[in-house]
Amino acid sequence: MTTTTTTATTQFISAAQLLEHWQGHRNLTRRVIEMFPEKDLFEFSIGKMRPFAKLAVELISIGGPALKGIVEAQVEAFSEEAFQPKTKEDILAKWDEETEVINHYFNKISEERFQETFNLFGQYEFPVYQNILYFVDNEIHHRGQGFVYLRALGIDPPFFWERF
Amino acid sequence: MTTTTTTATTQFISAAQLLEHWQGHRNLTRRVIEMFPEKDLFEFSIGKMRPFAKLAVELISIGGPALKGIVEAQVEAFSEEAFQPKTKEDILAKWDEETEVINHYFNKISEERFQETFNLFGQYEFPVYQNILYFVDNEIHHRGQGFVYLRALGIDPPFFWERF
Repeated sequence: MTTTTTTATTQFISAAQLLEHWQGHRNLTRRVIEMFPEKDLFEFSIGKMRPFAKLAVELISIGGPALKGIVEAQVEAFSEEAFQPKTKEDILAKWDEETEVINHYFNKISEERFQETFNLFGQYEFPVYQNILYFVDNEIHHRGQGFVYLRALGIDPPFFWERF
Repeated sequence: MTTTTTTATTQFISAAQLLEHWQGHRNLTRRVIEMFPEKDLFEFSIGKMRPFAKLAVELISIGGPALKGIVEAQVEAFSEEAFQPKTKEDILAKWDEETEVINHYFNKISEERFQETFNLFGQYEFPVYQNILYFVDNEIHHRGQGFVYLRALGIDPPFFWERF
């Protein structure tokens, strides 16, 4: 039985564990992209929300570019214009590229930096760890939306807990 | 510009920061529960998925009971049977009770314990930090589903980034 009380400096997770956790989520999202029929990926939606291809482009436009901005201390506005995929393959190829970009830049962030405030995309001024948690949470949130799209299309989504 | 490289022991976040992050998500989920019309909360669904009341009961049955199990090193099977709400008010009242239960037990977990393996609910044998991240991720995932239900009902969900 644990009786020690948590203090303000108690570590919850290391940076390496968070990166692995994030990449596990990204791998699951990749499988969700793969499961959509090509046409539905770009067109199907519910309640006037965006089709899943648009959500995938949003995720691709956040993770890598945001980490690059944090590491290079460059404040550039958020944009989804740079990447306009025509096919599922376009999206998956870019997804895999960004996996490496994320690993590269994440590993350049120091412990102190995670606690520093950064004006992400010139718009979101929060501690770096909060910005990074937001990237992961936003992905889980939109992928949850993707799970509903798949179910509505009669397709069983992957298991939520299977990551790699 | 940050040039320090992340090492295996680099801290990403403290336990206190993770708890605040989780309770922020719980507060957002509470607002989503509130936004559902009473009847739709218990009955509306898409693609044969569970209505949002069922998802809320799942979340209520995980967080507090799981942390209690971790802290007291008791392995009890997961069950959603103990709580069978009849109204939205029942769910919200229980939600608020669990907020305190989560704060109470989370703060009893030590830094070492987060890294130890625990057989949660006698079924999920993972490091404690992974189990806790799962509780948060599972909530974001199901709430994403709730956002689609609200949109399909013609109701604008709250902003994803507003927590408290």
